[in-house]
Amino acid sequence: MPNPSLLILPGDGIGPEVMAEVRKVIDWFGTHKDVSFDVTEDLVGGAAYDAHGVPLHDDTMAMAQKVDAVLLGAVGGPKYDELDFSVKPERGLLRLRKEMDLFANLRPAQCFDALADFSSLKTEIVSGLDIMIVRELTSGIYFGEPRGIMDDNEGGRVGINTQRYTTSEIRRVARSAFELAKKRNNRVCSMEKANVMESGILWREEVQWVHDNEYPEVELSHMYADAGAMQLVRKPKQFDVIVTDNLFGDLLSDAAAMLTGSLGMLPSASLGAPMANGRPKAMYEPVHGSAPDIAGEGKANPIACILSFAMALRYSFDMPQHADIVEGAVEAVLAQGIRTADLLGEEGKSPVTTSEMGDAIIAAL
Amino acid sequence: MPNPSLLILPGDGIGPEVMAEVRKVIDWFGTHKDVSFDVTEDLVGGAAYDAHGVPLHDDTMAMAQKVDAVLLGAVGGPKYDELDFSVKPERGLLRLRKEMDLFANLRPAQCFDALADFSSLKTEIVSGLDIMIVRELTSGIYFGEPRGIMDDNEGGRVGINTQRYTTSEIRRVARSAFELAKKRNNRVCSMEKANVMESGILWREEVQWVHDNEYPEVELSHMYADAGAMQLVRKPKQFDVIVTDNLFGDLLSDAAAMLTGSLGMLPSASLGAPMANGRPKAMYEPVHGSAPDIAGEGKANPIACILSFAMALRYSFDMPQHADIVEGAVEAVLAQGIRTADLLGEEGKSPVTTSEMGDAIIAAL
Ligand SMILES: CC(C)[C@H](C(=O)O)[C@@H](O)C(=O)O
Ligand SMILES: CC(C)[C@H](C(=O)O)[C@@H](O)C(=O)O
Repeated sequence: MPNPSLLILPGDGIGPEVMAEVRKVIDWFGTHKDVSFDVTEDLVGGAAYDAHGVPLHDDTMAMAQKVDAVLLGAVGGPKYDELDFSVKPERGLLRLRKEMDLFANLRPAQCFDALADFSSLKTEIVSGLDIMIVRELTSGIYFGEPRGIMDDNEGGRVGINTQRYTTSEIRRVARSAFELAKKRNNRVCSMEKANVMESGILWREEVQWVHDNEYPEVELSHMYADAGAMQLVRKPKQFDVIVTDNLFGDLLSDAAAMLTGSLGMLPSASLGAPMANGRPKAMYEPVHGSAPDIAGEGKANPIACILSFAMALRYSFDMPQHADIVEGAVEAVLAQGIRTADLLGEEGKSPVTTSEMGDAIIAAL
Repeated sequence: MPNPSLLILPGDGIGPEVMAEVRKVIDWFGTHKDVSFDVTEDLVGGAAYDAHGVPLHDDTMAMAQKVDAVLLGAVGGPKYDELDFSVKPERGLLRLRKEMDLFANLRPAQCFDALADFSSLKTEIVSGLDIMIVRELTSGIYFGEPRGIMDDNEGGRVGINTQRYTTSEIRRVARSAFELAKKRNNRVCSMEKANVMESGILWREEVQWVHDNEYPEVELSHMYADAGAMQLVRKPKQFDVIVTDNLFGDLLSDAAAMLTGSLGMLPSASLGAPMANGRPKAMYEPVHGSAPDIAGEGKANPIACILSFAMALRYSFDMPQHADIVEGAVEAVLAQGIRTADLLGEEGKSPVTTSEMGDAIIAAL
């Protein structure tokens, strides 16, 4: 069997720095576990724009479609703020999501014991927290047509975006959520605004349909998304799996990520339909952004990106034991008190650099 | 001069209970301060549906347009879940907002010293918190056309809603935010998703325009709404005034409300353009919902609704000293340790009832 193939897209800001540490982990597997990957590296986001004038080159897109998994760092930065909407760094990321049809975005919000004190929430509210947010990623208001900025007819302008969800779009992401719940605590909470949006009514009905017809054994509840935002802050441990649309998922998963107090720790997976070889189309990326303010300073935390690779081992390559090894090494390093700057409070403990953190994880492997 | 006029719409669930306590405060002003209001009471939401088959009777709507201010309790409940979208309790509330054109929804998120421990966030993160969120309330995705549920052409259905903002809609709510900031700490943070939504780009540009042309002395920053959700959880005290659209404002203001740990404490004001008498069109309501699970049990906290009346004194009737009196009485009662059930932890202190809380506030006045 050929080696599994990986396309690495470090992107902008701290992307290249954190990805360099992932490369160490990948190399470690080749040397110590005889698990080798065919790795290609390419540009995305602002980096691609600088080289090609577009945030994702067609050749890169074609390569992403061919490989077993894509690993992405981060995109964007103030340098690109004035660019036309159509070539902004984010469009590269959105194009990957859309053309690979990565409809299920898995965002675990997990609180690491060693870091519970670091959350802005009380320790007892977040310690042991383990939520999985499933965000629909290829439809909804970030993609719907019509969209744009036009003249209104009163001398001003009007900005338009369209939220649009179909039965099949909702059902397939609901299935992902129910499947995940079966391997976890068997509970799904679906969030929308069915009280004020018709697309929310359809969302609720279709999720309920999938439940009743295909997963009656999983516990399903529904919550308005504003109440969901509240409950995430008030009592996050009440949730197991949350399934929601692209826009609500964007805000809710970021709020949930912040509950853990350690954004630099959180990975994500974006999954699509199975390919011919049975593996799902997949892209893995840290939840944190490109953090241009600290880029190039060796301050970034590479753990989220390394744990994203662990998710790839689990979801793309069916190597759960290997994923466990990586996750175990991360926990061991944290237990030793090794911290990048983002994981330290104001008081003056001294942080390790991005590359020292990577080395510590390799040592723990 | 005629007495100022008030339309009271208690609505559903705990609405009537908490409003009964507001009536005590209104009566107290009549007796002790010679400040009398012409009060009319009517139905809204499920209560109106039960009586008239619609969630807001045209006569009630006409009355709302005529009075100086509307005071609303809460709408909705599981009893009405199966109703057709067009007559759901929430449509009554939305009709009031839309036809009165109450475009600026002021949602203070304020942490009361006596209650700081009750937040799920660490005390030092929230004590002294005082944010004002200005949510656009009459446009955006809750109102835009086209909307509805239709057949897709693949045997399924499609749910559609439209986000739509014009120059003038954005500018007027931005002005409200800048005006408020001038009376506070002079800082406005505007939130949208200009990186993925054209309506977000227009939002950002128009807010910037109002700043540059009309309020250059106020400090303005911009933040993506997902990052905003994170920052609210991580470090809420960094904000003074936040201005954002209807949908983002819905989630962000609820998350911010929950930071304070005391949803039962938070009032809101929804303001429109000035009427002939110079007063703005206005509706005041607590941030909490109808809480059907505890309705009728005397457990509800009337403070949010009483503080909503205090906001009316401040914003509609230009009686800031009287507003101070009410707010002072609430703080005094809290300092005495008097608590409704929602303000008590798990440990077994015994709560006062809705009406006992109202009486305590009257005693403190
Ligand atoms: C960078 C941006 C386009 C993206 C999004 O809004 O989806 C990001 O915020 C995310 O959550 O992955
Ligand atoms: C009841 C509902 C229509 C309303 C909204 O979504 O605007 C409520 O959640 C609010 O925030 O005032």
